[in-house]
Amino acid sequence: MQELFPHTGHAFTIGVTGAPGAGKSTLVQALITQIRGEGDRVAVLAVDPTSPFSGGALLGDRVRMQGHATDGGVFIRSMAARGHLGGLALAAPEAIRILDAAGAAYVLVETVGVGQSEIEVMHAADTTVVVVTPRWGDGIQAGKAGLLEIGDIFVVNKADRDGSRETVRELNQMIDLGAHLPWRPPVLETVATAGTGVGELWAAVKARRAHLEASGELGERRRVRLSREIANLAAERVRYHVGREAAPILDDLVTRAERREIDPGAAATELLAKLGLAGA
Amino acid sequence: MQELFPHTGHAFTIGVTGAPGAGKSTLVQALITQIRGEGDRVAVLAVDPTSPFSGGALLGDRVRMQGHATDGGVFIRSMAARGHLGGLALAAPEAIRILDAAGAAYVLVETVGVGQSEIEVMHAADTTVVVVTPRWGDGIQAGKAGLLEIGDIFVVNKADRDGSRETVRELNQMIDLGAHLPWRPPVLETVATAGTGVGELWAAVKARRAHLEASGELGERRRVRLSREIANLAAERVRYHVGREAAPILDDLVTRAERREIDPGAAATELLAKLGLAGA
Repeated sequence: MQELFPHTGHAFTIGVTGAPGAGKSTLVQALITQIRGEGDRVAVLAVDPTSPFSGGALLGDRVRMQGHATDGGVFIRSMAARGHLGGLALAAPEAIRILDAAGAAYVLVETVGVGQSEIEVMHAADTTVVVVTPRWGDGIQAGKAGLLEIGDIFVVNKADRDGSRETVRELNQMIDLGAHLPWRPPVLETVATAGTGVGELWAAVKARRAHLEASGELGERRRVRLSREIANLAAERVRYHVGREAAPILDDLVTRAERREIDPGAAATELLAKLGLAGA
Repeated sequence: MQELFPHTGHAFTIGVTGAPGAGKSTLVQALITQIRGEGDRVAVLAVDPTSPFSGGALLGDRVRMQGHATDGGVFIRSMAARGHLGGLALAAPEAIRILDAAGAAYVLVETVGVGQSEIEVMHAADTTVVVVTPRWGDGIQAGKAGLLEIGDIFVVNKADRDGSRETVRELNQMIDLGAHLPWRPPVLETVATAGTGVGELWAAVKARRAHLEASGELGERRRVRLSREIANLAAERVRYHVGREAAPILDDLVTRAERREIDPGAAATELLAKLGLAGA
């Protein structure tokens, strides 16, 4: 990473997220075709929120993507969302950086679902495309709010199905309920399987990028991102250290907590003091 | 928390999770009625994965739950899944502890979805009930694997609908594909709205508890949980510290990282060294 890092910072990173079944993978493939058609190199980071169990459907996607695998200008990388606390949020920026250093002009980060860790992944992107399907408005509210908040561009995919126009209208209404200045997220329609609307989507991504660059927001976001990442890495090192070299200290504290002699917060304070970090 | 902690460790904690629309809230209400019928005090911790935007549907649940609100033996507490990295995983054990100290014999933890943070929340429970609906097997694979792995008891709710028996059979087959010794998760059918099967579900929870206690696994799990929590709290303190008192040090490192003079990993190392934690 030390040797890679100086070669990073060139790729524009686009998060693509939405509920399972919204057609994110197909849309990503259509975007690859669009980007390659313009001669740019592109990389995909696919984040699976589930274990090898789910190999079925997701592996299918990966295999379908192999249509681009013979193209030297396309890099594809998969990542499991598994691991300890903060694992994905820490690993995603690093994975993106590798694709960046490899020479991708664009990195598409595809995540399934919108759990907390997926939102963390989206923090690693320069802009976020939220994909929904028609009649998305009919379902349960949970999950929608998160999507509404993180989207810079909204896409109603499978727009040839009933209810697409209503969904576009609903999304626009919901967006207008929030404060979205100076960038007001557009709502677009696509049929990813047929490539319909993909050019317009790509134009919207470019408009978003131009806006981020002109306003200085891109640099600011990347700075905040680097800051978060360094702080996260430091915190993660402490957790790792506690689990290894400091294990005997922790063990003793756990035993005292089991006996209710010390509460977890006080135990954490004592642990840090014993590690020489009294100020934290 | 220091004063509360000695009064905790008595409640048995039951996680209830599953996809949106599976009827988790209704099932939780039916379980409350069951538990209250046996004379025990019960608490609910409802974890919303989304922001105030989602108030609609979820607030509805909360309001419906107020049917139990006049009962002094029922405590209900809501929590937003929002916040920084690890926020929920850190906050859930504390919220459970408050309900525990308040005298609840059982704490039901309801989460929507199965993102990484929800799995973290489930780690805070002594046992986990996974709720699905008939025809659950027809959908997309994503998310199922996570559910299969965390479930100690499976419930096909809305079992009066078509396809319930097939779903039970499929679940049993999937469970048998994994290694589940010494506890083999049972698969039960309920119609939560009518209370059907809720007694059997509660009997399964009690059987699970008896098994956990007899094998010593309950104590072991709680010990591991305390250990994780203390380590997480220590790491979180470091992150917080870095963001506050150590902000100037971090700022300088971020500027150097922006210039590609130092990579984030090396920056984290330098940060910890400057904080006096050279070993981590």
